[in-house]
Amino acid sequence: MKEISFSREEIEALDNRYRAQLINSLSGAKSANLIGTQNKEKQTNLAIISSVVHLGSNPALFGFIQRPITVERHTFENIVETEFYTINHVHKGIYRAAHQTSARFEREESEFEKVGLTEEYKNHFFAPYVQESYVKLGLRLEEIVDLKINGTKLIIGSVQEMYIPEEIIKTDGFVNLSASDAVTITGLDTYNSLTVLERLSYAKTDQPLTNMEV
Amino acid sequence: MKEISFSREEIEALDNRYRAQLINSLSGAKSANLIGTQNKEKQTNLAIISSVVHLGSNPALFGFIQRPITVERHTFENIVETEFYTINHVHKGIYRAAHQTSARFEREESEFEKVGLTEEYKNHFFAPYVQESYVKLGLRLEEIVDLKINGTKLIIGSVQEMYIPEEIIKTDGFVNLSASDAVTITGLDTYNSLTVLERLSYAKTDQPLTNMEV
Repeated sequence: MKEISFSREEIEALDNRYRAQLINSLSGAKSANLIGTQNKEKQTNLAIISSVVHLGSNPALFGFIQRPITVERHTFENIVETEFYTINHVHKGIYRAAHQTSARFEREESEFEKVGLTEEYKNHFFAPYVQESYVKLGLRLEEIVDLKINGTKLIIGSVQEMYIPEEIIKTDGFVNLSASDAVTITGLDTYNSLTVLERLSYAKTDQPLTNMEV
Repeated sequence: MKEISFSREEIEALDNRYRAQLINSLSGAKSANLIGTQNKEKQTNLAIISSVVHLGSNPALFGFIQRPITVERHTFENIVETEFYTINHVHKGIYRAAHQTSARFEREESEFEKVGLTEEYKNHFFAPYVQESYVKLGLRLEEIVDLKINGTKLIIGSVQEMYIPEEIIKTDGFVNLSASDAVTITGLDTYNSLTVLERLSYAKTDQPLTNMEV
């Protein structure tokens, strides 16, 4: 394939929208998740996020990136106010509704209602889950890290409870997201399905990799 | 699908390996990238990373998570020593070699040579690229953020130059990673291909989403 190069100066000189599309495409495919919150007056909010990252398993911690000025700021305000939020995996059946949550709805409008997804309250957890999601995590805010370089924030939460379809959890704990129709996001607006190529054995310096059953 | 629930206490009580597999699966599918570095003595290093996250487009910034104790610590040391590193997308043709970089090679061994990938030096950039990759970013270290909660670090770098196949860049800047055979990682060890479901229009509160050409 013929390669194009971009220098730092060439990137800076690009049209803003073109650069946003281009740079957002270059991390590789991203997870697609919906963050569910409500404020103390029970006004709910739902926002699609492509920046959820695993930070640790013991305790179970996940982070996501909050941009300086975004339509998801109601989500951020609710997390700061209440400390609770949910992460809900987006699958093939709901990616269009999930994308529609990124429209600029008013504060008094709930994205759940506007896009046709269902609030679900489980086990007295304060924040709403997305009933239609298959994999759902309930988190408590642990830390907000300000990234001075560009005003973004890393929001870190610990898993308080979670819900997963039994049939996609393998005997060793691996969860086969392909079997739950999980999707990924490329760039700002493209949704992709997953197909397992191969599950590989733990890498060792003196042994070839082997193919494990998924 | 029948749902299993896990409380915080139940997660903490799991076997360590089971919990690592389980929690690593739950962010959703992750991007698969190789980080290329060398130290001042020209000893090269290559490490697979599934935590690359987009932090901003202007300037173009990406982050990744460095675990407290990992086989990738040579990579971290090289970045601190030299400030330069590359991010190289993993595709279908190289995911096995990419996974093998996670074996515990000695400091004086180069993963490039050990796994059969090729060092490529471009435009006097200090860190090695992976010749076999299709999408390659050259970064300079901007900031290391210590996450006190569990000793991980967020490594932030700015794009100094980048190389992308011309044919996968669309007219508006979107890069179709599916067309360059990009893969994702689920859990710790499973590699997945991407298939575009749909590219959606910018979401507006008063208009239905439309399908855009990819």
